[in-house]
Amino acid sequence: MRFRFEVLVSLKEGLLDPQGKTVQDALPTLGWPNVSDVRVGRRIELTVDAEDEATARAQVHDMAERFLSNPVIERYRILEVEGTGAT
Amino acid sequence: MRFRFEVLVSLKEGLLDPQGKTVQDALPTLGWPNVSDVRVGRRIELTVDAEDEATARAQVHDMAERFLSNPVIERYRILEVEGTGAT
Repeated sequence: MRFRFEVLVSLKEGLLDPQGKTVQDALPTLGWPNVSDVRVGRRIELTVDAEDEATARAQVHDMAERFLSNPVIERYRILEVEGTGAT
Repeated sequence: MRFRFEVLVSLKEGLLDPQGKTVQDALPTLGWPNVSDVRVGRRIELTVDAEDEATARAQVHDMAERFLSNPVIERYRILEVEGTGAT
């Protein structure tokens, strides 16, 4: 069965995020002065072919931990994309 | 009041995603041959100071449409980060 997941990767709290700062600095000029704490991260979407959802999810955790994120400076969370459970 | 949102930006279906392809091509070598349709996008997290949630959310839509994504080739969706509604 195929299961589709989203892995959301973000920098850990307290780490400098130059990309987020650049976005934030641009916002007042564009008419949005009321925005703060902008952080930019990655969103990876993928399909795993596995026996069942638990196996697929465990593999996604493994991939997120070892390949898709850098656990020293980043944290991740995994969402299952709706409507893919029964494919 | 401050409301924190996540904006998830991804390439529209059918568009070539070189970054996703690079990730996907690396996976079999790493021991995960059962992964397909890898797409890489952005995840932007930000705090908006507004009167109420509806106003904040409308502004995030506006920012996502006009600045955080390129609506010609990308789509976005907005999630509210939990536990920020009553700050």
